[in-house]
Amino acid sequence: MAATKPTPDASRRSEKSRRAIYAAALELVTEAGYARTTIEGIAARAGVGKQTIYRWWSSKADVLMEAYLDLADQTAEQTADQAADQAGADPAPGNYALPDTGDLAADLKLVLRATVDELLDPRFEVPSRALAAEGIADAAVGREVVAKLLEPSLQLYVQRLRAAQRAGDVRPDLDPRIALELFVSPLAQRWLQHTAPISYDYTDTLVDYALYGLAPR
Amino acid sequence: MAATKPTPDASRRSEKSRRAIYAAALELVTEAGYARTTIEGIAARAGVGKQTIYRWWSSKADVLMEAYLDLADQTAEQTADQAADQAGADPAPGNYALPDTGDLAADLKLVLRATVDELLDPRFEVPSRALAAEGIADAAVGREVVAKLLEPSLQLYVQRLRAAQRAGDVRPDLDPRIALELFVSPLAQRWLQHTAPISYDYTDTLVDYALYGLAPR
Repeated sequence: MAATKPTPDASRRSEKSRRAIYAAALELVTEAGYARTTIEGIAARAGVGKQTIYRWWSSKADVLMEAYLDLADQTAEQTADQAADQAGADPAPGNYALPDTGDLAADLKLVLRATVDELLDPRFEVPSRALAAEGIADAAVGREVVAKLLEPSLQLYVQRLRAAQRAGDVRPDLDPRIALELFVSPLAQRWLQHTAPISYDYTDTLVDYALYGLAPR
Repeated sequence: MAATKPTPDASRRSEKSRRAIYAAALELVTEAGYARTTIEGIAARAGVGKQTIYRWWSSKADVLMEAYLDLADQTAEQTADQAADQAGADPAPGNYALPDTGDLAADLKLVLRATVDELLDPRFEVPSRALAAEGIADAAVGREVVAKLLEPSLQLYVQRLRAAQRAGDVRPDLDPRIALELFVSPLAQRWLQHTAPISYDYTDTLVDYALYGLAPR
């Protein structure tokens, strides 16, 4: 499995190894948990040498994070396609902007419902939880999780809220980076700490409460 | 250190041991982290036999959680006193209701500012984070953390929001258990996952956004 030079052939072999390594990493962390997942175990399951893994990644957190990112990318693409279908628009390939149908509440509810699906899907849930737990226990992993996984997805909400501000649907003086937390963080905390169940009804409610406020209008 | 029978003397000795054990548990987890804290280490630091600890608690998570609860109780009492001073009221001893001055925004901001202080105080931060991380990694510990630590403090917000509903300051149709998450969960997520800094300005902003909503009025 030694892909020694970046020839087209080597790069095809690399891509195949990379896919096998991602799959092995996600399977192992799902079956055995984060603590018992090792680079050796991932290499054995993927049918590659340990050195192949160490050539591309510096730690198991690193492999796992990229495997997870890759999985999330695939799902984001599917969700973008679905949203574009519903909106009757063409999805721009590789463009993971949130849907903008002009109805902010509906768009946010759609995206949060898709997030609920993802958080309840064991293929995502187990590696996501393992990474989140490791990120809280280990500050260096935590910074990587935030920078590579969490913040990029939050920035999609920032963009959508900025568009809503231009459209007059969100108060112009609000900081969108804080505003998004009113509906994103409650879902994150319920899921991460198991404080209460999550559902479509719940995320729909969060959007309504956040947009219209708790005080009577 | 054998407190064999519940005579007044034994109970005084027990209380002294219990305090020493709480202090030792919090010191050790702060110095060495959760994983390297052991019942043996706590016993040695507290100057008690291992059996004294096993007589009262079944695991280190258990000892640590009660030690933390005890610390939180002491601070809650101080905060309640301060709030009562500001409101010119007498604090009811052992009554940890949130302040109710009739100004919901001001009351919530006061309590969240006190929470920011607590979350940034290393005496709290380190054991809280250790427990939270363990609660995410271990579902049984997680259920205990939620039931004993998190949910009781959230119920104080439920009560305050119900009072606000009776006073006409919060829409009567809202579920207070969900509504409180709009300002509590963002702070929790920033602190737990280090997604962004926390400050008084930030929690004040959360309260304003949650009460008045993101959509223009």
